[in-house]
Amino acid sequence: MRQTLDFLLNDWLKISQDLTPRERFAEHSDETYAAVLDTCERIAREKYAPANRLSDTQEPHFDGERVTLPRATHEAVAAYVESGMLAASCDYELGGMQLPCVIEMAANSFFAKASVSIGGYAMLTKGNAHLLLAHGTPRQQEVFVAKELAGQWFGTMCLSEPQAGSSLSDVATRAELEDEADPLGPRYRLKGNKMWISGGEHEITENIVHLVLAKIPGPDGKPVPGVKGISLFIVPKKMVGPDGALTGERNDVQLAGLNHKLGYRGTTNCLLNFGEKNGAVGYLVGKPGEGLKCMFHMMNEARIGVGLGAVMLGYAGYEASLEYARQRPQGRAVTSTGKDAASPQLKIIEHADVKRMLLAQKSYVEGGLALELMCARLVDEQRTGTPEDAAEAAQLLEVLTPIAKSWPSEWCLEANSLAIQVLGGYGYTRDFPVEQYWRDNRLNMIHEGTHGIQGLDLLGRKVVMNGGAALQVLAAHVNDTIEKALQQPALAEQANQLAAALAKVGRATKNAWSTGLPEEALANATPYLQAFGHVVLAWLWLDVSMAADSDSDFHKGKRAAASYFFAYELPKIDAWLAVVARRESLCREMQDGWF
Amino acid sequence: MRQTLDFLLNDWLKISQDLTPRERFAEHSDETYAAVLDTCERIAREKYAPANRLSDTQEPHFDGERVTLPRATHEAVAAYVESGMLAASCDYELGGMQLPCVIEMAANSFFAKASVSIGGYAMLTKGNAHLLLAHGTPRQQEVFVAKELAGQWFGTMCLSEPQAGSSLSDVATRAELEDEADPLGPRYRLKGNKMWISGGEHEITENIVHLVLAKIPGPDGKPVPGVKGISLFIVPKKMVGPDGALTGERNDVQLAGLNHKLGYRGTTNCLLNFGEKNGAVGYLVGKPGEGLKCMFHMMNEARIGVGLGAVMLGYAGYEASLEYARQRPQGRAVTSTGKDAASPQLKIIEHADVKRMLLAQKSYVEGGLALELMCARLVDEQRTGTPEDAAEAAQLLEVLTPIAKSWPSEWCLEANSLAIQVLGGYGYTRDFPVEQYWRDNRLNMIHEGTHGIQGLDLLGRKVVMNGGAALQVLAAHVNDTIEKALQQPALAEQANQLAAALAKVGRATKNAWSTGLPEEALANATPYLQAFGHVVLAWLWLDVSMAADSDSDFHKGKRAAASYFFAYELPKIDAWLAVVARRESLCREMQDGWF
Repeated sequence: MRQTLDFLLNDWLKISQDLTPRERFAEHSDETYAAVLDTCERIAREKYAPANRLSDTQEPHFDGERVTLPRATHEAVAAYVESGMLAASCDYELGGMQLPCVIEMAANSFFAKASVSIGGYAMLTKGNAHLLLAHGTPRQQEVFVAKELAGQWFGTMCLSEPQAGSSLSDVATRAELEDEADPLGPRYRLKGNKMWISGGEHEITENIVHLVLAKIPGPDGKPVPGVKGISLFIVPKKMVGPDGALTGERNDVQLAGLNHKLGYRGTTNCLLNFGEKNGAVGYLVGKPGEGLKCMFHMMNEARIGVGLGAVMLGYAGYEASLEYARQRPQGRAVTSTGKDAASPQLKIIEHADVKRMLLAQKSYVEGGLALELMCARLVDEQRTGTPEDAAEAAQLLEVLTPIAKSWPSEWCLEANSLAIQVLGGYGYTRDFPVEQYWRDNRLNMIHEGTHGIQGLDLLGRKVVMNGGAALQVLAAHVNDTIEKALQQPALAEQANQLAAALAKVGRATKNAWSTGLPEEALANATPYLQAFGHVVLAWLWLDVSMAADSDSDFHKGKRAAASYFFAYELPKIDAWLAVVARRESLCREMQDGWF
Repeated sequence: MRQTLDFLLNDWLKISQDLTPRERFAEHSDETYAAVLDTCERIAREKYAPANRLSDTQEPHFDGERVTLPRATHEAVAAYVESGMLAASCDYELGGMQLPCVIEMAANSFFAKASVSIGGYAMLTKGNAHLLLAHGTPRQQEVFVAKELAGQWFGTMCLSEPQAGSSLSDVATRAELEDEADPLGPRYRLKGNKMWISGGEHEITENIVHLVLAKIPGPDGKPVPGVKGISLFIVPKKMVGPDGALTGERNDVQLAGLNHKLGYRGTTNCLLNFGEKNGAVGYLVGKPGEGLKCMFHMMNEARIGVGLGAVMLGYAGYEASLEYARQRPQGRAVTSTGKDAASPQLKIIEHADVKRMLLAQKSYVEGGLALELMCARLVDEQRTGTPEDAAEAAQLLEVLTPIAKSWPSEWCLEANSLAIQVLGGYGYTRDFPVEQYWRDNRLNMIHEGTHGIQGLDLLGRKVVMNGGAALQVLAAHVNDTIEKALQQPALAEQANQLAAALAKVGRATKNAWSTGLPEEALANATPYLQAFGHVVLAWLWLDVSMAADSDSDFHKGKRAAASYFFAYELPKIDAWLAVVARRESLCREMQDGWF
């Protein structure tokens, strides 16, 4: 994977030329990047990978008082904290390294590949800290962010409730004002139950910083209906003084139980009760009623993080099945003279169908990696580009975020299934890691906004916002790649195929909205999401192909994966877009009684 | 499900009119069928379903001497044996019920749905007995089959070895002749290791009848290379006298270990060592060198059995997610005036995307059920039809068997994934059954011939054998359905869509073989298998639609599922067939060093 990462960063994204010269990165160079990647690769290999199966078989255990995790999980996380990676992209003055986000993501990919669920704690903590850097008061940042970036306290995001998963407007947790003038921010008392809270309880760190969505009652004493009633609060597990020291008191936050999951077991997943006794103390972040907007700062980051995790699970399965296929003898070549049973068996990597399964995985996981790095690169552009470039990057990121989250969740899960298939019966046993990757990856279509929610976000919001401006920005980038590729005879056919695909997406988008009725437009939002994702990936693969222009085996492999995507994958969009474009009403008109 | 089963048997397959009047079923009627279905539905509900999760959490355990299974598994299997279903379709003189195979399958579907892995023991035992009824000597049938049909002994199939999974020509187990004149058949001594043996060890029954593939050395003392060197042997776990009584001696068959699987844990899966001491005693079945041919009698039956199991896992997930969707409130209707946050939440079954996921499941699992019943009906035709009809049924069954095995393995697994998705986070926990269905179902693309093997069987053998005769028989049946459907205005469009799809498959088949080179034709055998399967399913759905011609909700549901398949699924074949038709060489030309 390292070679592919280096290729994508240097030869495709051209980080040294285009990003490193900027002022923010003045102290960085290819050498400092390489040192970070080397370190992270090593820690991931030495501390995360060996703990991955253990985190699955020794699932988190709650005895009613304490949550127990394997010792190896504690050690792995401690090594991560020690590396300083929690603050990798943060300002020097915050104790950070001021690394580009794209380098930070490349470095984090090693941890996600080695053990995605152990990596969950750090991912959440960073997202939590970044939200507070954007929306918290200076004091909140001094007290909470500093501890989070140092890895002394970890963070969570508490959105869902047992009765409100995808439907956040129905959040029922209430927050009553106690003291407007608390130094840590307006102090409230919260009561309610939060479900599916990853990292919601553990003893890895001395404290946990929950970011909690709750509703402040309106003048009538009732919670304001809808998302506009939602506010955001910092609710520490243990009480904190205005100086940031623990007071010794516990906040009124109780672990009601752990969820027992199919996979992703290294991360605890909790039902938390807030305010069973006197109400949990929470400090308002941002303005009342702007909680969801603030929370999206963390959610968008988490969605890309989920996408990266899905890619890395796919990558881990790809590497495991590639290694197996190179070593396992089985069967013989199919030829017109039949099989020579007396000849030695081939390694299974010689069989066309096995190569198909490996190429499919390669196209999914390396394409997915390019997608996630592209998103991180856009975050860098938002931070350090010219105002015009930054604004454009922001728009592109808006439209790519649902793809960055959903596409790997679906296709790198498929990659994991193919990895099992390459190993055959062995892949179905717990003696090999691929079955765990498949189980772990199944979560990714569910958390941080389900597949269905991503589809609604894309077709219902992102491609229509500002008169379709974000979609136009994306189309301009795709067309730019197409024009460059058209100048290379070997890529012209793929360029034309991509141009046709982009036009189809455009037409389907227009047709979906041609009646102006959301219920008609959005009835096929998921197939739209699937088709859109495949077009984005085809764009990235064509673009990556242009950077892989030598006769080296490595570059040939990149072009083969791109060709696979164009030959076997991109043609799938016709079936998906057909129902979108004709506003197929079958599903929405289906009646309960007909099932 | 019962209503759908009754509909498919009575209104679609018209069993009462077309099958029951035949002599073999003279003592049967709709009433006897209903009694069998009632009984099996009840036993499955009372004994199998409650044991299903237990069989997963209390995985089979081997302490070095004995294999332990949950008590509930023993009780469930005992109830099945007591029902007489092991001999359901066998002759009266064998203690059977002479039920049509299609009724037997309908009855068995309840067990597969309630606990597919507990059902594995009986499925294997029946297949084992049926093979011996076709190829065993009268004495072998008296001794082994009688005990198997009575449920006193269970059976297995021992094909794979650690170094020979899909490649049976490399079987290394050797069989040396000891006594040509043993009353139980020519007696050999076997030495070798067999892997992935389902039901290979347990203490449910007093003995286990292994059917083992092994090679008899040729005149040069070496095993004959290739499949023509393979012979078939009965190897009992415990030694048996010529009268069928246990001698008290153990045969030289040792359990070397259990495989620890991702799912399907109710069935033990074993590595067996044959002949570690003096050689395991085995009795030749059929002629030397015809072992694989004989074994295919059991394998073909097992492949359809695997398909049924995959369908029923899908069905179980469909029912669970449908029930959940009807009860779970979440979110509100999408309308052009926005959402009214103050209105009560909808049940999620009201959302178009949830209905899409349920309709997809319905089209996969009910379509799959129609496919498996059709196969069983063809077995009945082979047994009881006119010689001409029987021959045609045999050909149709040849070409449908790889589809019956592979299609549900892929798409009812997808159904299980959709069931998880409908439940969201809850579906990812072990508090609901859907995650287990998904894990259990992942086996089905692997055992009894992988997906890749089924593709090679279909495109490399079945559609080209006898000059394409079997494919022509299938096409004639499909065209028959198309012509009838064309007479109904509401179905004409689907009929035309199916006709076009059939023509595409025909062209792709021809193009694939146009150079006559197997390596070119078969490089895309798996996408061919996928497309072929979708066309078969579209055919069945169109045919089923014609039997669902009333205005009842139930019939509307069937037609909606058919429409879903035509709108959302059948169009996928273009992408699959394109690479087949142009003999896309990308995968077979891919080089190891490029990965």
